[in-house]
Amino acid sequence: MPPDASATKARLLRAATEEFTAYGMAGARVDRIAARAGANKRLIYVHFGTKEELFDIVVQRQLGVLADAVPFTPADLPGYAGALFDWVAAHPEALRLNAWKQLERPEPAAAEMDIYRPKLAALAALPGPGPLPGAAPADVLALVIGLATAWFTASPALRELAAEPPWSPARLTAHRAAVVAAAASLTQPQPDAASQAVPTR
Amino acid sequence: MPPDASATKARLLRAATEEFTAYGMAGARVDRIAARAGANKRLIYVHFGTKEELFDIVVQRQLGVLADAVPFTPADLPGYAGALFDWVAAHPEALRLNAWKQLERPEPAAAEMDIYRPKLAALAALPGPGPLPGAAPADVLALVIGLATAWFTASPALRELAAEPPWSPARLTAHRAAVVAAAASLTQPQPDAASQAVPTR
Repeated sequence: MPPDASATKARLLRAATEEFTAYGMAGARVDRIAARAGANKRLIYVHFGTKEELFDIVVQRQLGVLADAVPFTPADLPGYAGALFDWVAAHPEALRLNAWKQLERPEPAAAEMDIYRPKLAALAALPGPGPLPGAAPADVLALVIGLATAWFTASPALRELAAEPPWSPARLTAHRAAVVAAAASLTQPQPDAASQAVPTR
Repeated sequence: MPPDASATKARLLRAATEEFTAYGMAGARVDRIAARAGANKRLIYVHFGTKEELFDIVVQRQLGVLADAVPFTPADLPGYAGALFDWVAAHPEALRLNAWKQLERPEPAAAEMDIYRPKLAALAALPGPGPLPGAAPADVLALVIGLATAWFTASPALRELAAEPPWSPARLTAHRAAVVAAAASLTQPQPDAASQAVPTR
């Protein structure tokens, strides 16, 4: 591949990410992506295939970036929840792209399953009763992600009713602390057990 | 209003709910809504205004149905989380409509703020330290809703990796138990306090 092809591909991917984030898959226009990238529309088909295939590539790429940026720490779920919250707060477009994906492309992707599989295995391998004793790893991970993303998926009306503006640093700091505390509570022994056990954290 | 106007309005609202749930606001076609309802397209504008106004009415109506069906019980957040999970599991189209709303109509709606305001006041009025001591009511409510809806907002790839099919009764029962346990853990005293306090639940 000549160097300029690689640069064009990168520009097209950036433009596609912006277009899909704004309009979703059905609403995105290949013409606009090409124009935004200053490239010929035909090159999109050459490099990436159909609009649907390009959408999948963009989503998968973003998931890879997230997975690299926020390492999964099964023995420290509060730390993971806090780091995931921070990443999403710094990349609001990622959750938006993910929401389009859920609506327009809900089939489970094999490449994405490869991202989740080791996380579930790591949770299953935790010593002791683990978080939420009795809960399956998929439940634990879904709930921790649910906590970390709750502020972003919450209704705008609910966010608006907080004491501080929804996206102000003070608000995000307060909510982050609540996320971390909530994730910590999942991994605490139940009260009956706690009165006998030595706290480990 | 003559009785047949009321019946037509009800049919149009049902058709609009189906259309918006499937295609979102931008993707919805007023022609299709009218055809589905067996009504004249002009009646949509007469009764509901623009497509955007109709979308807001449909969303607000569904929020009202949810609020009526799942009473908020601030002193029993695990019960609330479980009931909310049950309602969403029985109405998967509601979360889909809500996702379109978040993407296409993100402004906080006054009518929706009226639904959340008393919930936050009730949380603030709880005696004692309350759930997640130090967390604001908006944080607590967002996190409880995040837990209750986590399975539905989770990646399809993650759901697919559970031991049972994602929407099988066994899977939903297991996940519901994890949701309720997670919500209960938010309201439990911290371990240090638990070793001194008499458990209240």
